[in-house]
Amino acid sequence: MQNYHAILCYDGTKYNGWQKQGNTSNTIQEKLEQILTEIAQTPTEIFGSGRTDAGTHAKGQNANFHMNFSGTPKQLMTEINSRLPEDIGVLSLTEAAPRFHARLHAQAKRYVYNIWTGDMPPVFWRKYSFWCKEMPDISRMRQAAAQIIGTHDFKSFCANKRMKKSTVRTITEIQIEQKENRIVLSFTGNGFLYQMVRILTGTLIEIGEGKRSTEDIPSIFSAQDRACAGFTAPAKGLFLDEVFYDRAEGSGKA
Amino acid sequence: MQNYHAILCYDGTKYNGWQKQGNTSNTIQEKLEQILTEIAQTPTEIFGSGRTDAGTHAKGQNANFHMNFSGTPKQLMTEINSRLPEDIGVLSLTEAAPRFHARLHAQAKRYVYNIWTGDMPPVFWRKYSFWCKEMPDISRMRQAAAQIIGTHDFKSFCANKRMKKSTVRTITEIQIEQKENRIVLSFTGNGFLYQMVRILTGTLIEIGEGKRSTEDIPSIFSAQDRACAGFTAPAKGLFLDEVFYDRAEGSGKA
Repeated sequence: MQNYHAILCYDGTKYNGWQKQGNTSNTIQEKLEQILTEIAQTPTEIFGSGRTDAGTHAKGQNANFHMNFSGTPKQLMTEINSRLPEDIGVLSLTEAAPRFHARLHAQAKRYVYNIWTGDMPPVFWRKYSFWCKEMPDISRMRQAAAQIIGTHDFKSFCANKRMKKSTVRTITEIQIEQKENRIVLSFTGNGFLYQMVRILTGTLIEIGEGKRSTEDIPSIFSAQDRACAGFTAPAKGLFLDEVFYDRAEGSGKA
Repeated sequence: MQNYHAILCYDGTKYNGWQKQGNTSNTIQEKLEQILTEIAQTPTEIFGSGRTDAGTHAKGQNANFHMNFSGTPKQLMTEINSRLPEDIGVLSLTEAAPRFHARLHAQAKRYVYNIWTGDMPPVFWRKYSFWCKEMPDISRMRQAAAQIIGTHDFKSFCANKRMKKSTVRTITEIQIEQKENRIVLSFTGNGFLYQMVRILTGTLIEIGEGKRSTEDIPSIFSAQDRACAGFTAPAKGLFLDEVFYDRAEGSGKA
């Protein structure tokens, strides 16, 4: 069977996140598997690069699946898109090397978090951003972000209390850009713990609002306690923006 | 009582348009009057610059209302916004001259229509744009638009068959801009008939797709028959963008 590499976008508002697990229904993975199974007429699984939380969006989720399909990847993509609801879409579909796996071969990811500021909450961006009435101090947020970059134990920024595996991760870049009344934060790293981007964002907002010192980051890291970090920014402001693969492992025929 | 001039934005997706009329319920006007009446504790009407269709959005609807309110306009705006649902917002609120009327004194309006092109329908813009798979020919659309500018009888572009009043209007500007895979059409004029912008847009799309000649416009005008013009582009792509007032008649204390 051919292995396919798909890049997907979705509006996560109405879904319980990417991944089906236990009794969780109404996930994006489930929706896609249902459609792939209809097309292949045999049970077909799809493997995402990682989970996204309930309510979180994606502009570049990556996934792979195996299928026998007689047409071209372009035809398969059209077939899938014609069956998908309007809040999920396949952006690209290519033939992948037989052993390519969207999660195991992912080398890095970029997440983007959108903040909207101003007296009035955003009418047209209400499902895709978090509203802060007052503009936080961007230079304070950047000072704090510089202390997050690098390899650290992110246990204090992980919402999973029973996490038994390593909580060490590397963040290679954090960009904080002001675009008119919006703030766009982007986080690039080799992996992210459960709700890590949302807790990092919440902590940076509290620093930008002057509720915390820009010098708080090292002590939050050393505490290894979720309670020492900031609030969890809402899922609706978060987008999985891009997943990075080594070219040799990535898509393209073997 | 003080006359107030409000500039409003709304996501029209869930509403039956701006204006309450007869048995039409769930309108934006109705929602606002309900809130203004609660604040004033006396029945309060609001007058819009004009109707918007069911499903059409606004980034700059204008309206006026009279009220006794003890605080500043800023405080009143905050009070209204705190009671509004998340798909309606007051962008500005100022004291207006006693006789200022948002409809009677409107001198011109600008509407914007958003088209999204590409293989995949827009996931995040699905409620705010019309999807054309193939990019229409912008230069053909601009050639046709040039023939629409000016003062004409727009009867062929009016969906109201029983229109008894004059159907002559003046369009002063049509801009057609391509922004990556989007096309943004903006129409500025002294007044617009029922569904006129949507029928103009549908006609321009058909010309851009090569289904009609760029020379069709004069014959559509002279036919004075709705059936001769193009399709009615869906309401969801349309935004009332701005309403223009003479400064002397507009807001500001008398």
